Amino acid sequence: MKEINIEVARHSLAHVMAQAMHRLYKNVNQGVGPAIKNGFYQDFILPKNFKGEEELPQLKKEMQKIIKENLEFVKKQVSKKEALKIFAYDKYKSEMINELPGDKVTVHTCGEYNDLCKGPHVEKTNQLKQFAWKLERIAGAYWKGDEKNIMMTRIYGLAFENKEELANYLEMQKQAELRDHRKLGKELDLFVFSEKVGPGLPLYTPKGVIIIDELKNFIESICRKYGFEKVMTPHLAKIGLYETSGHAAKFADELFHVNSKHKQEYVMKPVQCPHQTQIYASRPRSYKDLPIRYMESEKQYRAEKPGEIGGLNRVIAVTVEDGHVFCTPEQMKKEIIDLISSIKDFYKPFKLLDKAWVSLSVRDKNHPEKYIGEDKDWDKAEKILAKVANELKLNAKRCEGEAALYGPKIDFMFTDYSGREIQIPTVQLDFATPQRFNLLYTDKDGVEKNPVMLHRAVLGSYERLLALLLEHFAGNFPLWLSPVQIAILPVSEKHIKEAKKFATELIENKIRVEINSEDETVGKKIRHAKQQKIPYILVYGDKEAKGTQLSINERGNNDVIKMTKKKFIEQIDSEIKNKTLK
Amino acid sequence: MKEINIEVARHSLAHVMAQAMHRLYKNVNQGVGPAIKNGFYQDFILPKNFKGEEELPQLKKEMQKIIKENLEFVKKQVSKKEALKIFAYDKYKSEMINELPGDKVTVHTCGEYNDLCKGPHVEKTNQLKQFAWKLERIAGAYWKGDEKNIMMTRIYGLAFENKEELANYLEMQKQAELRDHRKLGKELDLFVFSEKVGPGLPLYTPKGVIIIDELKNFIESICRKYGFEKVMTPHLAKIGLYETSGHAAKFADELFHVNSKHKQEYVMKPVQCPHQTQIYASRPRSYKDLPIRYMESEKQYRAEKPGEIGGLNRVIAVTVEDGHVFCTPEQMKKEIIDLISSIKDFYKPFKLLDKAWVSLSVRDKNHPEKYIGEDKDWDKAEKILAKVANELKLNAKRCEGEAALYGPKIDFMFTDYSGREIQIPTVQLDFATPQRFNLLYTDKDGVEKNPVMLHRAVLGSYERLLALLLEHFAGNFPLWLSPVQIAILPVSEKHIKEAKKFATELIENKIRVEINSEDETVGKKIRHAKQQKIPYILVYGDKEAKGTQLSINERGNNDVIKMTKKKFIEQIDSEIKNKTLK
Repeated sequence: MKEINIEVARHSLAHVMAQAMHRLYKNVNQGVGPAIKNGFYQDFILPKNFKGEEELPQLKKEMQKIIKENLEFVKKQVSKKEALKIFAYDKYKSEMINELPGDKVTVHTCGEYNDLCKGPHVEKTNQLKQFAWKLERIAGAYWKGDEKNIMMTRIYGLAFENKEELANYLEMQKQAELRDHRKLGKELDLFVFSEKVGPGLPLYTPKGVIIIDELKNFIESICRKYGFEKVMTPHLAKIGLYETSGHAAKFADELFHVNSKHKQEYVMKPVQCPHQTQIYASRPRSYKDLPIRYMESEKQYRAEKPGEIGGLNRVIAVTVEDGHVFCTPEQMKKEIIDLISSIKDFYKPFKLLDKAWVSLSVRDKNHPEKYIGEDKDWDKAEKILAKVANELKLNAKRCEGEAALYGPKIDFMFTDYSGREIQIPTVQLDFATPQRFNLLYTDKDGVEKNPVMLHRAVLGSYERLLALLLEHFAGNFPLWLSPVQIAILPVSEKHIKEAKKFATELIENKIRVEINSEDETVGKKIRHAKQQKIPYILVYGDKEAKGTQLSINERGNNDVIKMTKKKFIEQIDSEIKNKTLK
Repeated sequence: MKEINIEVARHSLAHVMAQAMHRLYKNVNQGVGPAIKNGFYQDFILPKNFKGEEELPQLKKEMQKIIKENLEFVKKQVSKKEALKIFAYDKYKSEMINELPGDKVTVHTCGEYNDLCKGPHVEKTNQLKQFAWKLERIAGAYWKGDEKNIMMTRIYGLAFENKEELANYLEMQKQAELRDHRKLGKELDLFVFSEKVGPGLPLYTPKGVIIIDELKNFIESICRKYGFEKVMTPHLAKIGLYETSGHAAKFADELFHVNSKHKQEYVMKPVQCPHQTQIYASRPRSYKDLPIRYMESEKQYRAEKPGEIGGLNRVIAVTVEDGHVFCTPEQMKKEIIDLISSIKDFYKPFKLLDKAWVSLSVRDKNHPEKYIGEDKDWDKAEKILAKVANELKLNAKRCEGEAALYGPKIDFMFTDYSGREIQIPTVQLDFATPQRFNLLYTDKDGVEKNPVMLHRAVLGSYERLLALLLEHFAGNFPLWLSPVQIAILPVSEKHIKEAKKFATELIENKIRVEINSEDETVGKKIRHAKQQKIPYILVYGDKEAKGTQLSINERGNNDVIKMTKKKFIEQIDSEIKNKTLK
């Protein structure tokens, strides 16, 4: 049997779905129906008596029937005139026919059904039997993807080589839903949104801030080791700042414009770099002062399209841990190596880099118009990055055309729980910005020169990292990141006093403790602590109050552990300090 | 001799200055000429040949002459018609005459000179001899204070009872100039402004951020003791949030409006409270959850008039340490006491509260239209505040009409080095906001009730506090706040290695160290360290590199102290931990 490409099968299934729809409803109008990652979809203008997802089983049955009928896909070229006659009932197909180049169009016929399509398809519908497929869900989609056009209904299907693959995918989807950071963020009370404040503007609760502060302290302590110093810049600037940097053009649609009754006009910063150049530029610099390394965790504001805002991954207030190095060309290589080391240091306790791949993102030499700066600088920069990537055995994939406007970069690519690729850490070389802002240093020879600027993200945006970590750990944060590290559950009222005494001892050891003296039963108390995914639960009764032994419920461990208070504190302390991952 | 009021003398001097100007230049047009704090001024439309401050000595000479001539001030009532004839040469006096009510105006004549003025003045100019006065400076001022009008020239004079008072004032001025936070901020490289970013938008350098972070860590550690938890909210919100809170009306002119191409409309937050109410409101609250205490150090944005922006005291990006307590009426008193304790804890190492006075700011019962909320709540709130102020022996002055819109408050008033009063810490009671936002908790009786809201500032705005501290300490920050705590100065190149070794030891003890291995001579190195006002300077030569003894130059102490390295580290460590003030 000839092997059938899964893409071809997926697209053919979209066809079969359209055909089934036509059998069930007369003269349905349609949009496009391509194969996509994991399956296929088809856009429709649905008849009014189509009731929504409850119709999917019937549609599926009809599709199965068409597959069984083993109809042949027959390709033919017809004149546009003829095609317009065939599809006279369909406004959108007619529109497409008129827009296609040439005089003829390709039509595929499958049994009684015609579709405007180039293919390829399977030869006969029965060949689709070997694949595992499922109608998934219904969503809205604009005709031609343009929000000015009519909203069509998109029916999604999943399709895989076999049942096992489909089952795996469905299981992964289920897990991803359970791990959805929006759901977990609410359950664990980490962040909230308010209608009154507005969409895309997360408000972090005390528990959320604990995680953010822990991440901030960690990244700052690492970067300080590599000579970074903290700066703090405001969220506004005159637009000229971004005209000089080039961001005004790049982020034209995403800029928030700010104005007052006193005719003041500003924009909100979409990036931190231009502000940081102004601190560099605030006094004369000598080669002896370099490298100068600035870091900052501040909010940036980007006007994402209202329809695209959601969760923590698409917000308009993004808290970014951003940093820049200004150095001489001679210092560049060591700085790149240090920056990559800082990335490794930061992700070590999460073990996230193990599964990441590295992109050496260089320019596309066939399109010099896409970049600024001089060729010889680009050559040098790309060579250095490639050399460092090689020396550090990053196993980097050379991706042409993936460079930034101003220079090449090394990107680390994560994959999140639902299979999406997420780029967070990056090291970028930039010769252009220091020239544009006329940043200078006096070199050994007394000549004023432009420093090299390195852009780097390690943690990236707190929002994106928090979403990633929530899903990665399914809310079971390692001890050092857990907002509440230990829950103490007094068995009855008479144990509260002693429980508080022990809690005080833990707090003095900088351990975050919560005492639940409110719920009525110990069972309820345990359930609440487990819902909060607290790493250690201590039931505190007579024995614990009077003695030196504790009864410890560790998250993910069904056995109750007995340990002395002293040893427990030591163990907790070491687990926090070492950022242990269990 | 009849005692002459200093205000009368000051105003008379403004008169004499105008008269002298008229003798020197013909038909000078004039604005107002009142007595002010410390002296007087007179506004003029200056003739073109008036060259600026270099003319002041000549003007002074002429004034002295008029005083010597002992001319009499003669008051007379004249008809407006007559007055318009007398002052026909002066456009502005004519305008004023027409605007005055009634048919007659008061004119004072002094020798050959007439002025439109009600007085009072001294009887004869020679009486001004007993006062000490000085022409001070020239500035611009709009006619009638309205920026739409012509800009006049304002000549300022100082005038005091006697020479000693004038000398004291001038010395204080000189000290204030030396301590000017803008000057010190630049010299110590703590913050900068950038033309490209815009006025009123400070950029904090690494050294500035060290101070801000130390202050932030200190205030957070204190407030945590009192049960505060950190939250984090964005800088934008829909305007409706502030319409509910009442701030949209209150800050109508100071609001920054934000918009995007996607028709998103927001305002920048002028205060933190409404955002924090939304975290409270994000889930149901029980009386068992209260008090809930939120704190946050974030930037607020207020559109100050462009002409009024300057230094750190008038910025448009204000970093505010803001906090709110939500509690039951029964918990209110204890919370107020705790908030005042936190204020005392924070200012203790600065000794700033010693010289502050306390205002019990209550409502003006004659103007109930100025406040919101119910009379019985106000009575209760004012009584509680008065009682607490009394119990804590705050020696509070009852200031009627100084309450906030929503409730009474206790304010702590500092005086800065140039004699200005600065209000920073405050505790405010608020019954209205929880009602406006429909904030609720379920009480013991199962009934939903509004919590009481307490607003409190301890540190206030980082900008204002930094300016105050810079001036208060004249840049000589206590050790714990000093960006560089110890300067190590290697005597020659061969001592650098050992100096670095010792620096590493200090850094491991969390001490901030700078090594100066760049300047050529030790003298130069010491000078640079002293300019930076570094608390401890260690000259590092043969003896120090090889031995255990250090040679320590302590700031403000001319003797070189000898001490072992071990003892020095212990001493430094204790000075930092105790926040010692020297």
